Amino acid sequence: MAIRVAILGATGYTAVELIKILLRHPEVTITALTSRQEGNAPIASVHPTLVGRISANLENLTPAEVAARAECVFSCLPHCASAEVIPELLKAGCRVVDFSADYRLNSPQVYEEWYGHRHPDPERLGKVPYGLPELFREEIRGASLVANPGCYPTSVILALAPLLKAGLIEPRDIIVDSKSGVSGAGRTPKLTTHFPECNESLSAYNVGRHRHQPEIEQVLGQVAGSTVEVVFTPHLVPMDRGILTTTYSRPTRQVSEDEVLDCLESFYQNEPFVQVVDHLPATKDTAGTNFCHITARIVRDRIVTVSCLDNLVKGASGAAVQNFNLMYGFPETTALL
Amino acid sequence: MAIRVAILGATGYTAVELIKILLRHPEVTITALTSRQEGNAPIASVHPTLVGRISANLENLTPAEVAARAECVFSCLPHCASAEVIPELLKAGCRVVDFSADYRLNSPQVYEEWYGHRHPDPERLGKVPYGLPELFREEIRGASLVANPGCYPTSVILALAPLLKAGLIEPRDIIVDSKSGVSGAGRTPKLTTHFPECNESLSAYNVGRHRHQPEIEQVLGQVAGSTVEVVFTPHLVPMDRGILTTTYSRPTRQVSEDEVLDCLESFYQNEPFVQVVDHLPATKDTAGTNFCHITARIVRDRIVTVSCLDNLVKGASGAAVQNFNLMYGFPETTALL
Amino acid sequence: MAIRVAILGATGYTAVELIKILLRHPEVTITALTSRQEGNAPIASVHPTLVGRISANLENLTPAEVAARAECVFSCLPHCASAEVIPELLKAGCRVVDFSADYRLNSPQVYEEWYGHRHPDPERLGKVPYGLPELFREEIRGASLVANPGCYPTSVILALAPLLKAGLIEPRDIIVDSKSGVSGAGRTPKLTTHFPECNESLSAYNVGRHRHQPEIEQVLGQVAGSTVEVVFTPHLVPMDRGILTTTYSRPTRQVSEDEVLDCLESFYQNEPFVQVVDHLPATKDTAGTNFCHITARIVRDRIVTVSCLDNLVKGASGAAVQNFNLMYGFPETTALL
Amino acid sequence: MAIRVAILGATGYTAVELIKILLRHPEVTITALTSRQEGNAPIASVHPTLVGRISANLENLTPAEVAARAECVFSCLPHCASAEVIPELLKAGCRVVDFSADYRLNSPQVYEEWYGHRHPDPERLGKVPYGLPELFREEIRGASLVANPGCYPTSVILALAPLLKAGLIEPRDIIVDSKSGVSGAGRTPKLTTHFPECNESLSAYNVGRHRHQPEIEQVLGQVAGSTVEVVFTPHLVPMDRGILTTTYSRPTRQVSEDEVLDCLESFYQNEPFVQVVDHLPATKDTAGTNFCHITARIVRDRIVTVSCLDNLVKGASGAAVQNFNLMYGFPETTALL
Repeated sequence: MAIRVAILGATGYTAVELIKILLRHPEVTITALTSRQEGNAPIASVHPTLVGRISANLENLTPAEVAARAECVFSCLPHCASAEVIPELLKAGCRVVDFSADYRLNSPQVYEEWYGHRHPDPERLGKVPYGLPELFREEIRGASLVANPGCYPTSVILALAPLLKAGLIEPRDIIVDSKSGVSGAGRTPKLTTHFPECNESLSAYNVGRHRHQPEIEQVLGQVAGSTVEVVFTPHLVPMDRGILTTTYSRPTRQVSEDEVLDCLESFYQNEPFVQVVDHLPATKDTAGTNFCHITARIVRDRIVTVSCLDNLVKGASGAAVQNFNLMYGFPETTALL
Repeated sequence: MAIRVAILGATGYTAVELIKILLRHPEVTITALTSRQEGNAPIASVHPTLVGRISANLENLTPAEVAARAECVFSCLPHCASAEVIPELLKAGCRVVDFSADYRLNSPQVYEEWYGHRHPDPERLGKVPYGLPELFREEIRGASLVANPGCYPTSVILALAPLLKAGLIEPRDIIVDSKSGVSGAGRTPKLTTHFPECNESLSAYNVGRHRHQPEIEQVLGQVAGSTVEVVFTPHLVPMDRGILTTTYSRPTRQVSEDEVLDCLESFYQNEPFVQVVDHLPATKDTAGTNFCHITARIVRDRIVTVSCLDNLVKGASGAAVQNFNLMYGFPETTALL
Repeated sequence: MAIRVAILGATGYTAVELIKILLRHPEVTITALTSRQEGNAPIASVHPTLVGRISANLENLTPAEVAARAECVFSCLPHCASAEVIPELLKAGCRVVDFSADYRLNSPQVYEEWYGHRHPDPERLGKVPYGLPELFREEIRGASLVANPGCYPTSVILALAPLLKAGLIEPRDIIVDSKSGVSGAGRTPKLTTHFPECNESLSAYNVGRHRHQPEIEQVLGQVAGSTVEVVFTPHLVPMDRGILTTTYSRPTRQVSEDEVLDCLESFYQNEPFVQVVDHLPATKDTAGTNFCHITARIVRDRIVTVSCLDNLVKGASGAAVQNFNLMYGFPETTALL
Repeated sequence: MAIRVAILGATGYTAVELIKILLRHPEVTITALTSRQEGNAPIASVHPTLVGRISANLENLTPAEVAARAECVFSCLPHCASAEVIPELLKAGCRVVDFSADYRLNSPQVYEEWYGHRHPDPERLGKVPYGLPELFREEIRGASLVANPGCYPTSVILALAPLLKAGLIEPRDIIVDSKSGVSGAGRTPKLTTHFPECNESLSAYNVGRHRHQPEIEQVLGQVAGSTVEVVFTPHLVPMDRGILTTTYSRPTRQVSEDEVLDCLESFYQNEPFVQVVDHLPATKDTAGTNFCHITARIVRDRIVTVSCLDNLVKGASGAAVQNFNLMYGFPETTALL
């Protein structure tokens, strides 16, 4: 029998992508789509791409009502709002994949410092698996709550984790220059994402102050077994979707390009969704897919990695379904190829 | 001595384009830039493209204060707001180029029907020249108030006026299919102009209900000397600027493509900014310029015209400066080549 | 047992889209991918979006070699080239879905006039079902050869066929103004599709001379039972994919907007992929899907329809798989939702 | 009397931008436009944006013929081709602004290594001023030949030169991550710049192998007075024009953000075209202008600079006219504001 799933905060871009993936999943029935603002509109009226594909309406439901309808909940709520309802859902027996940042950081202090709110559920921090199957597959299997990773962190961590784990690069001399399409900024209209402002333009934003920095450093730190520090600069690119991350790190010893590529390849040799490639990948190669493409070069005394993925799929909703598949014991690639 | 000019509503896209043109105008000094919302911010902080080019601040000024500073006022205020201040400016001796629709229509009833407001200054309607120099140059010369045309109407009227005037096409069997870049929708963020919504997408909007329809029909009616009716469909195109208009009209008699092109060419032979071309023009050919490119084809029993221009230049701020040049007796192309 | 399928001309955009759809089809195994130019490269090196998803190589195969490997052949070859190999494939017992225009027109003379080549297989013309299931489902079922429709024609025919069939519009007074994304122009680099030329630009092309015009007129003529004439103007839009078609036709009698929408809705009520909508659809609503969205308006004395689809899916590869499903008796929506 | 100028290789993007600027220059008459491929076509037929603005034809002229017509020559020829004609032009008394890389590097060996050709005019290397007025204004004044800088180098050098000169950063620990619009790749259609390939996509290219690297290092080395090494990664961005460069360097001592900004500001305080800004600039802020906007941040132990400019203006044709103005003693900003 199919798993009954609910999606909280179903009006954003990650939710519509999630719905499209779940409609292809043979083991899933979508039983609730919630929204606080949109009243009881048909979801297809909010996302016309769903016309003829799903007839459900949005609903403003309490956690108890959600729990009565669904065994598994995907929370696409914003940070803070998410952690306010998840404890009740878990108590009621639901399993949850959380798209927000609420359960990604281990420290309530770090959370408060970067997100500006006291964490609503601090006791659980540090006990929730970080939903990157390539690193934490065993913890995710059978978990009742998974913290779905941020889009930038996925592109960064997948590129650097193998090199840190192998001790190939210095953990405190890492530059991360990331570039993202505009869907990453969400669906609320703002001047910075108004078409005539960001079209035909490129800019850096939140230099040194982006909330994904502590997430990257925490996860890479776990992998490295020592403190990792990155200088992280995100950029806004005039395209819908896609993240490309270029990292610059310093080898701990003389290495060849082949050695670096081998390190990546052997790390990911059994992974269905991470592809180590020889050529320089483009975000378009991964658009609409759950894949991440990675390559590496040696330039002067640095290792340069280039990795890319679709921020709405491997960077959000595809990863969430990959986690869901692991949590429920379905083949990991179900609905994702 | 330079003309002192003020710009009302200086935070929108037409205003910044106007400022850039006026900074090149040897006979102009910008003496006031008004805004109700932005407080006293430097204009360059609102439009960073002006950094290092103009040091003026926005100000919230009364019409009297504006009149004390400027001989000529460009009003980039929205409709209704514009006609509420223009009478006082005129009374105080200013000349005005109005970017809004307030003085384009001759009939207060038609205005009220399409704009949903009672006209604030109905007596003046019908006495203000329509600022399309190619048709109304003599009326514009020396005028104290000019109604700057809408962007779509300019692209339509320039293509069809010569054919209607020559009696070559039926005045009540005209299809107008227009396509515009997103800057035409203004600078206020909305979902429809949010980058991930309108990028990589094309749509029709306001089909049969766009406010430029009565303007097109009124002006073409004057030219034709009889009632003109158009079916007008605007479309939103994922690009910053540019309008391309395709019209389909029925010849009143058998005509060849050459005859139609000749009709257009002889009409515009002395015009500095209208170019009749043999090839099919692209909006990019006119981007950033005050030019309009037009061509025509015969397809089956129809005359098809294709015309294009930059909605922010020939469709707004360039036309305004062309009108300004005529009003003050400067060479018509000053600052526009 | 899965159907073994081959794809001829596997390096273009329609082929890669087709591969992605077929990889999701439970009843299909891809057994051959042909190319004359690319040598024996892995298909994933030509289309990096396929890395990790399919390991096949391109091959330069004779029709006999293809027939030995595949029961069903999708021909993505250009016109003329396609009809040169299809007879041999059919003779060898293959079934074929032809993406080219070679079997769409019934008359060898019309073909020669518009395509500039003598047809290589003229006897078969007029006997091959036109692969638009919404109109010709019964003919397609079990057919050995299907002519997959052109992308523009699909968007036009789906909008107008119900109105013509119901006798609601005049068959010889139809304006068709279509707008297409750039992938429709194919994968061969040309100046007109060079990014800095067509980006941020809109243009009309092939006005009155586009090869899809006779195809539209022939199919609509069959539906109407009388000669249909259209004035057809395609435009190039700066986006990857999507076609939006705006048609203007003259009602044969007084009709209301509701009547027109009802006519469309009842025609398509059981269709899985055609959605009649109240709102004005955007190409993005159908991007990446096999859906076509259609609406209609009455403006003055005209019926205006707006229809959109993804030129690479419902306009090409999705339609091909829909036809394939019908030909082999699989549920029509398999791999397409 | 106006200076008679010729443009060699007048069919590319830098040439059309140059023509548009020169048409506004009161002291210039364009007397020759050369092309080897386009025959004698009107320049406006190759660049329809020039229709009605310039009536000249392209011509295939020898250097002697050019010298007979022009006092000043702008060479937009490709590298190698440029240095093959410039010696003869200089001998004939012309002054030359060279857009190619031919006279930017001081060493024939470095040139040969990076450009793959033996230099046609090696004796002149090292004696030609590098056309960045902000650094080499005095050398450019009155020069007979100026090497117009590369687009990337301008964005990099303007950001880093003040910091290196002040000894604020380590000269051999510099990461340069640059992002460019597609016009930088020229006007020859290629698969990588075919719209459906590069639109909606971002990629790195020529990692560690881009020809602008030695140019950057040479010029910054002169400024620093010691060897400078950069790791340089260019990226292709789906937009027409604009370069944004993000650099990461290591301070030589503890510095504050204000100190870094002050260093930049005092360096450029009298420069008309370099603006040090507090906010993070976007390429659009400088599009269509000769300005470069720069800012800086401190992130952890690095100085991060962000600089942007229009690759076709300050990165090419605007800089060329700025050099021309200096060479001939015209006010430096003539035709550039």
